[in-house]
Amino acid sequence: MAAKHHYVYGLHAVRALLARRPRAIRAATVLETPAGAALAALAAEIEALGVPVARAPRAGLDRLAAGGRHQGIVVEVAPRREFTVQDFEALVLERGRAVRLLVLDGVEDPRNLGACLRTADAAGVDAVVVPRARSAKLTAAAEKTATGAAETVPVVEAPNLARMLAWLKEAGVWVVGADAAAPKSLYEATLAPPIAVVLGGEGRGLKHLTRERCDELVAIPTVGSVESLNVSVAAGVLLFELLRQAPVVAAGRTE
Amino acid sequence: MAAKHHYVYGLHAVRALLARRPRAIRAATVLETPAGAALAALAAEIEALGVPVARAPRAGLDRLAAGGRHQGIVVEVAPRREFTVQDFEALVLERGRAVRLLVLDGVEDPRNLGACLRTADAAGVDAVVVPRARSAKLTAAAEKTATGAAETVPVVEAPNLARMLAWLKEAGVWVVGADAAAPKSLYEATLAPPIAVVLGGEGRGLKHLTRERCDELVAIPTVGSVESLNVSVAAGVLLFELLRQAPVVAAGRTE
Repeated sequence: MAAKHHYVYGLHAVRALLARRPRAIRAATVLETPAGAALAALAAEIEALGVPVARAPRAGLDRLAAGGRHQGIVVEVAPRREFTVQDFEALVLERGRAVRLLVLDGVEDPRNLGACLRTADAAGVDAVVVPRARSAKLTAAAEKTATGAAETVPVVEAPNLARMLAWLKEAGVWVVGADAAAPKSLYEATLAPPIAVVLGGEGRGLKHLTRERCDELVAIPTVGSVESLNVSVAAGVLLFELLRQAPVVAAGRTE
Repeated sequence: MAAKHHYVYGLHAVRALLARRPRAIRAATVLETPAGAALAALAAEIEALGVPVARAPRAGLDRLAAGGRHQGIVVEVAPRREFTVQDFEALVLERGRAVRLLVLDGVEDPRNLGACLRTADAAGVDAVVVPRARSAKLTAAAEKTATGAAETVPVVEAPNLARMLAWLKEAGVWVVGADAAAPKSLYEATLAPPIAVVLGGEGRGLKHLTRERCDELVAIPTVGSVESLNVSVAAGVLLFELLRQAPVVAAGRTE
């Protein structure tokens, strides 16, 4: 991620930020006529940290949130330290046999990226991998949909996704790709860490080179008339089947 | 659903409509300078049906799609016949021991409703139940997110959700509610048709009366820091676990 300052908005996302990185909050803007006790309480909590809280009309908040559903609050957040490829590789080696990764091969809608981060967080994923090119970025819209998960699940941008998958395989990580045309269903597969679950972008599936790097391809056996599942739903189905087969033992996500 | 005329937009949704209810298409509007072969082919296919196809600038399509991502095509669709409570009850009785239902207790975002329909369709659900009050409607935005599933999965509006759940129980349907606080995980539950899976709205969970009507409450065992899963992802996790435990036998969704 490019480390530049950015905005987080929405009650849930701001609350998650407050719980995890309160010192990252530089300034807040809330609706001048607070709609509801939740918003007033949140503003008071931020003010208690010594953070300046400005009041603004709805139009001002709309502008800061770039049209997103801000629910009356937008905060400016200090830059995160960039999560580099080196950081990622160190994390994978440190997590060792317990590592769970989600690889998104070309998800272009920021809301879908955000929804995937939220799902990945809930399923105990250690990090999410996206290609540097042809991928949605962690915009404010993505962070809003992530409802705070963008602050907890690190996202690494791979300059070359195929090469990173090759590295993961060498590091002993099992690389499983989701492919609607695969003869094997995910329920017939043995899913266990160390694992990387790879999903294609919206409706397009895995890219050729990505597919070639997978150790195994599995299908989600859909029965309806719709072509495919939304990518965040597919991520949920796969990651929770992994969780069913290989539960995360509490405390620190270790096996 | 109130039976009034409406618009469907986006390549995927229009293609699904064309495949399933081609005669419902009354008129189409496409971008005057078609961007890509897919759009041109789709327009030609609609024209071949004898449907008038108008060309318009982007701003005109934006207006028809009420700001939704139309991808250069908006079609006007004839009213669907309303799917009444009587239709629903007949369907449940006809499907008998094979029935799979999804009940959404207060999903207010039309995009979430659409995403739930898409997921329900892929998981072989026979019908979706929403309360008449306090629920998102099948707007164009919902249909776009549903990528065609709004045309295939019937949605019934329950005037009184608690009463409808009581009727389902009397009809022999097992009513399973998702509740993050339930001591039992969905993986410990025996999920099989006839079944109704009940999910609460965005971040609020089940309403008191709804919870009381459930035969069983199950939790999706999340491990992250985010409060809850998106409702369509939760639907996917639950409905695909049902599918894993009790697969739909091909042809006609019968057991």
